[in-house]
Amino acid sequence: MSFDPASYSPTHFLWDFADGVATITLNRPERKNPLTFESYDELRKTFWSLDETYAVKAVVLTGAGGNFCSGGDVHEIIGPLTKMDSNGLLEFTRMTGDLVRAMRACPQPIVAAVEGVCAGAGAILAMASDLRIAAPTAKTAFLFTRVGLSGADMGACAILPRIIGHGRAAELLFTGRNMTADEGFAWGFWNRLSDSVLADAQALASDLAAGPNVAHAVTKKQLDAEWHVPVEKALQMEAEAQALCMETKDFHRAYEAFAAKQKPVFQGD
Amino acid sequence: MSFDPASYSPTHFLWDFADGVATITLNRPERKNPLTFESYDELRKTFWSLDETYAVKAVVLTGAGGNFCSGGDVHEIIGPLTKMDSNGLLEFTRMTGDLVRAMRACPQPIVAAVEGVCAGAGAILAMASDLRIAAPTAKTAFLFTRVGLSGADMGACAILPRIIGHGRAAELLFTGRNMTADEGFAWGFWNRLSDSVLADAQALASDLAAGPNVAHAVTKKQLDAEWHVPVEKALQMEAEAQALCMETKDFHRAYEAFAAKQKPVFQGD
Amino acid sequence: MSFDPASYSPTHFLWDFADGVATITLNRPERKNPLTFESYDELRKTFWSLDETYAVKAVVLTGAGGNFCSGGDVHEIIGPLTKMDSNGLLEFTRMTGDLVRAMRACPQPIVAAVEGVCAGAGAILAMASDLRIAAPTAKTAFLFTRVGLSGADMGACAILPRIIGHGRAAELLFTGRNMTADEGFAWGFWNRLSDSVLADAQALASDLAAGPNVAHAVTKKQLDAEWHVPVEKALQMEAEAQALCMETKDFHRAYEAFAAKQKPVFQGD
Repeated sequence: MSFDPASYSPTHFLWDFADGVATITLNRPERKNPLTFESYDELRKTFWSLDETYAVKAVVLTGAGGNFCSGGDVHEIIGPLTKMDSNGLLEFTRMTGDLVRAMRACPQPIVAAVEGVCAGAGAILAMASDLRIAAPTAKTAFLFTRVGLSGADMGACAILPRIIGHGRAAELLFTGRNMTADEGFAWGFWNRLSDSVLADAQALASDLAAGPNVAHAVTKKQLDAEWHVPVEKALQMEAEAQALCMETKDFHRAYEAFAAKQKPVFQGD
Repeated sequence: MSFDPASYSPTHFLWDFADGVATITLNRPERKNPLTFESYDELRKTFWSLDETYAVKAVVLTGAGGNFCSGGDVHEIIGPLTKMDSNGLLEFTRMTGDLVRAMRACPQPIVAAVEGVCAGAGAILAMASDLRIAAPTAKTAFLFTRVGLSGADMGACAILPRIIGHGRAAELLFTGRNMTADEGFAWGFWNRLSDSVLADAQALASDLAAGPNVAHAVTKKQLDAEWHVPVEKALQMEAEAQALCMETKDFHRAYEAFAAKQKPVFQGD
Repeated sequence: MSFDPASYSPTHFLWDFADGVATITLNRPERKNPLTFESYDELRKTFWSLDETYAVKAVVLTGAGGNFCSGGDVHEIIGPLTKMDSNGLLEFTRMTGDLVRAMRACPQPIVAAVEGVCAGAGAILAMASDLRIAAPTAKTAFLFTRVGLSGADMGACAILPRIIGHGRAAELLFTGRNMTADEGFAWGFWNRLSDSVLADAQALASDLAAGPNVAHAVTKKQLDAEWHVPVEKALQMEAEAQALCMETKDFHRAYEAFAAKQKPVFQGD
């Protein structure tokens, strides 16, 4: 299901669209942008819809007011969960996990722009993005253990070790401790530290939006799809995927630009 | 098979138990705590029994006398192995591998406290723990190649790359060279360097023993179980695992403590 | 199919053989050693043949004239690809992927010695080696995106994240940006930086060629084979693989040397 990114007007977060880049801003700054049942649901539906919303070429995910996201709201989410039965709980964890699935399944690269608090499900949203830029003051905590839960939340036990390694992920998930911005950069969680995260993230997203878009979608998909397969199988998958990219006009445009000693201008097909 | 951790008295290593934390100390300090057929076997049986020994909430693994473990004893293990037939050799490698299986399968987080020599099977014991604290003088070597063997010993080709990456693991396993404590920290093998490793490891284990214990067991299990599966499957596994954690009383206790602006006191159920 | 490494004389690259170490030198220095259809094909056939060429115990892969490899030649490869049909493209991507398969399948450890430009398929050749040494001036770029292609080229989406983590690999593959030598070392891509890469790589390859060779082949194979399997299965695989290594004479030689307080001299059986 596609939508018109120029007029899209979600209820539970801000949406901005310019030059192929959609910027999603979590916007409850007085509470450090916590998530609610409703915002989880609207986020996942939005990311799933991006699959067919071709005008969006890249996404920036950020938070308003100097913080990224404080995670699931204690009063609006944790409290109600303590009163739910098994079916309700499973429905909730499937729904939050489905947001991560949608982020990993959409063809657009997602750049997280993170300042301040990045905690719980907020840390997950950063983790589930493709690229991550943080302010030096960013404080990231996978703090599920502090509310009596496991680190197995929204894919953290799968995805976090793939980014920072099994030993560091174990420490963050067992202890719930804060990961400083410097640690996160040294460990490969943050791709860059910056004093102007939003501007940097939008500039990076603009570069990605300029294409080659088919190729970027293949890169994103294959990075997830090849982690858990034998190298021989990965090579087969890549041979087929890259051969298709070689049939795109953007590949021809790149060659022609090179032959003419110009910078290629991709067009997405 | 459970046992009473307060009165447990193993033959081949020291056992200490206090406040939910069991401390296992390899104790042949005059030889830098090498392993023998008997200590391998008693260790694996102990770790397997932890599965049903609920009073033990976390484990510290360390060595006596300023060294962690020098690996399989050359005279008591390597020598006899050179005289064994194929069946005997396979029985031995299965037994040592089974110790790692037991360490990964028990629900308790294991914290390795490492000083001095950490070599061969000793390096494996550190690797197979969940969290690792080392003294700045720790010397770690996966030195199997130096005795004519492959790096495929007790899970090293699987687990070491998951902690420090494929390229660094390849170097350590092909060359058998020493990894300095600084390297090990920079690479994510050591979670922390400390001048008081045992005290730090016991403090960390105490924190983990305070719970939430069901959740910690889920974190440990899922970190291993999700490495090699598609992200979509990992998300399904986590939805089910976390929904169960939300049915624990510890989850409710955390919420009630938060609402009362107190620190939660977990009780393990 | 084996060959005589002392007299082997390939057409599209230099071959040098001494003391068990084969050195392959890409040798079109005026163009920074780009690959062509013919050199891809001859490289993969050479690596496949190493499987039965027992006299070669280790391989060094390098480039002539201060650069490693500039990747697929724009005029000789990219241009013709833009004129190929689907079958031809798939044949090409399968052929280049088959070179990586051959490098991962041969039993000899491969040490890449990298100076200067290391780009596109050149970066892949470094990545697909077992160990990597670079000059401080090495510039490495997985630049497929710049020619309109995906990062899913010759196994990059599978192998690069296993070496440097998912987040850093994503950045390099989405942006095609240069990875400096310092970054590559900090991230675990380079095992060492050196001002004399070729000499260092050949010294390291000599050490590896000295054995134990059966064990090294097992280490190489298992590092790839265990990445994507459950830990329990990896432990079974290792029990069987290491038990076989314990039946080699080199294992006995190591024990006898140790008992005599000498350095073992391995002989490869």
